[in-house]
Amino acid sequence: MHIKNILNDMEKDNIQAYLLTQFTNVEYISNYKPTSFAFCVIKENPIIYASQMDMEIANRDSSIEVKQYEKFETMIEELKKEGIRNLAIEPSLVYSNYEKFKDDFKIESKNYVDKQRMIKSSSEIENIKKATQIAQTAFKELDVANRKETEDVLAFDLVRLMIENGASGESFDTILVSGSNTSLPHAIPQSKTLETPILVDWGAKYNGYCSDNTRTIVYNEKEQEILDIVRESHDKAIKAIKPGLKCCEIDKVSRDIIKEYGYGDKFIHSTGHSLGLDIHETPTFNARDDTIIEKGMVITVEPGIYLEGEFGVRLEDTVAIGNNAKIIGDLPIEL
Amino acid sequence: MHIKNILNDMEKDNIQAYLLTQFTNVEYISNYKPTSFAFCVIKENPIIYASQMDMEIANRDSSIEVKQYEKFETMIEELKKEGIRNLAIEPSLVYSNYEKFKDDFKIESKNYVDKQRMIKSSSEIENIKKATQIAQTAFKELDVANRKETEDVLAFDLVRLMIENGASGESFDTILVSGSNTSLPHAIPQSKTLETPILVDWGAKYNGYCSDNTRTIVYNEKEQEILDIVRESHDKAIKAIKPGLKCCEIDKVSRDIIKEYGYGDKFIHSTGHSLGLDIHETPTFNARDDTIIEKGMVITVEPGIYLEGEFGVRLEDTVAIGNNAKIIGDLPIEL
Repeated sequence: MHIKNILNDMEKDNIQAYLLTQFTNVEYISNYKPTSFAFCVIKENPIIYASQMDMEIANRDSSIEVKQYEKFETMIEELKKEGIRNLAIEPSLVYSNYEKFKDDFKIESKNYVDKQRMIKSSSEIENIKKATQIAQTAFKELDVANRKETEDVLAFDLVRLMIENGASGESFDTILVSGSNTSLPHAIPQSKTLETPILVDWGAKYNGYCSDNTRTIVYNEKEQEILDIVRESHDKAIKAIKPGLKCCEIDKVSRDIIKEYGYGDKFIHSTGHSLGLDIHETPTFNARDDTIIEKGMVITVEPGIYLEGEFGVRLEDTVAIGNNAKIIGDLPIEL
Repeated sequence: MHIKNILNDMEKDNIQAYLLTQFTNVEYISNYKPTSFAFCVIKENPIIYASQMDMEIANRDSSIEVKQYEKFETMIEELKKEGIRNLAIEPSLVYSNYEKFKDDFKIESKNYVDKQRMIKSSSEIENIKKATQIAQTAFKELDVANRKETEDVLAFDLVRLMIENGASGESFDTILVSGSNTSLPHAIPQSKTLETPILVDWGAKYNGYCSDNTRTIVYNEKEQEILDIVRESHDKAIKAIKPGLKCCEIDKVSRDIIKEYGYGDKFIHSTGHSLGLDIHETPTFNARDDTIIEKGMVITVEPGIYLEGEFGVRLEDTVAIGNNAKIIGDLPIEL
């Protein structure tokens, strides 16, 4: 089905073949997830050129034909022999691969697969729900507020608990930090015991799909004040999400609330990102993304305020979009 | 010093600016490791355009000037105003970024930084040695041959032990597999108790640098026979390494031994790869890489034989190249 939709898009643009190399795109299309390079070509008779060391799993997992990659020139010749002239590539194709194709084909960059992946099927949403459930159960079991170990040990323990609860791993490097370390949105857990506040940004991977949540545990009035603002921004942004609106409008709702309280310049990242097989997918809730929100999208809402040298607060939930946005999972905001 | 060497290379090629976006390249040049996108431009007055959320760590860590990234157009205008016309890019630049620059500059793909990174400084080698020592200590502590848990639990336990011994994490997804799962070079640990043989391919990360080793524990005559062949290939390839030879010549030494025993078509990957800040760097011991081996390179030697449906054997050590190749670490081949 995915391939048929993409072939339709290609036909409209007069594209005869579409080259995929991004592992999760190849996985999305064929069910085979490369562990080394692979060239997947969507065309009337789609084909994957896989590396020799991947042939066993490619033959086992792929729903489309697999050939062993021999040489670059062979692949190009085969495509040319089929009369392929107009070739589409992914925006993420690395230049060194683009270079190999550029003299033999007319090339355009297209996001056909990213576009498909924006709209999740019910089974994809089930996987994201399951990943979220695992991650939130592990978080409760960790009971971080009552632990005396260092940030890095606790981050690792959270991953262990996710795996024990059925995750295949973490969906990104777990952020479990405290004190002034929380003012870095992408902080790295350190070998130091917990200070306040405690910020945890974590996710599980289940059946290939990611979850993503953030909670901040606060301990004094100033921290609570900031949390309340972030919470208002988080809640109102989620409430505002409706199919038909633009993504940037949701970013504006979230950002305006933080601005009103005078912290506009302390909200130093986007309001949210889609997720699925990858932890960061499109569309994004930011000021420049004017993608129209549609049913079936799964996007995070994660406003934050970062006071450099002091502390930061971020709250994040992942929402599945139907007629409205519904939060995935049931973890309370304040713990 | 790195920048000076690169500026020299650029001058020879009449390149006025060199754009870096690969995180480890930016880190190598500036000591700041991006957590989000960053554009590092090597030129007479080098500069990094970092995302707003990274400004705190970029200002803290970077040895070169950092500006906050605002808009794409601003960056291009600033470069053009400096009279930059010939721009070099990394081979790994993604097409969507290449596209932003291609109309305003004459662009060439250059591997100036990869080339520098081929030759490790003594402090880089110390970091790789320390990562290896941590990984090998953890492996001994794991005592995998006497454990009764499942592959995935043991893989996770090995990572825990590496972290307890001082690693910041694993340098790639730990492969700890057994039985027929060993015939996949990039196998994923399963939730099943250990069969024979047991293959472990693992590495630690220390101070940004990677280690990489593989051991296979065999239990019967057939497994031992294959191990002996792989061991001969491993030992003779390491002995053959000398500055002045080509990388492909080492691949040939390793591969020819396995061929002699009739398993040539079962050695389904390259003989080795360089490592450093990344787990896979250049040059590579494979049939096509004619890079001349030089002192200061750090490369793995990892021949393997994979009998589909039965089992596989791989042995891997990382060597530091001086007048000869010296194995990093002291873990015996047979355990």
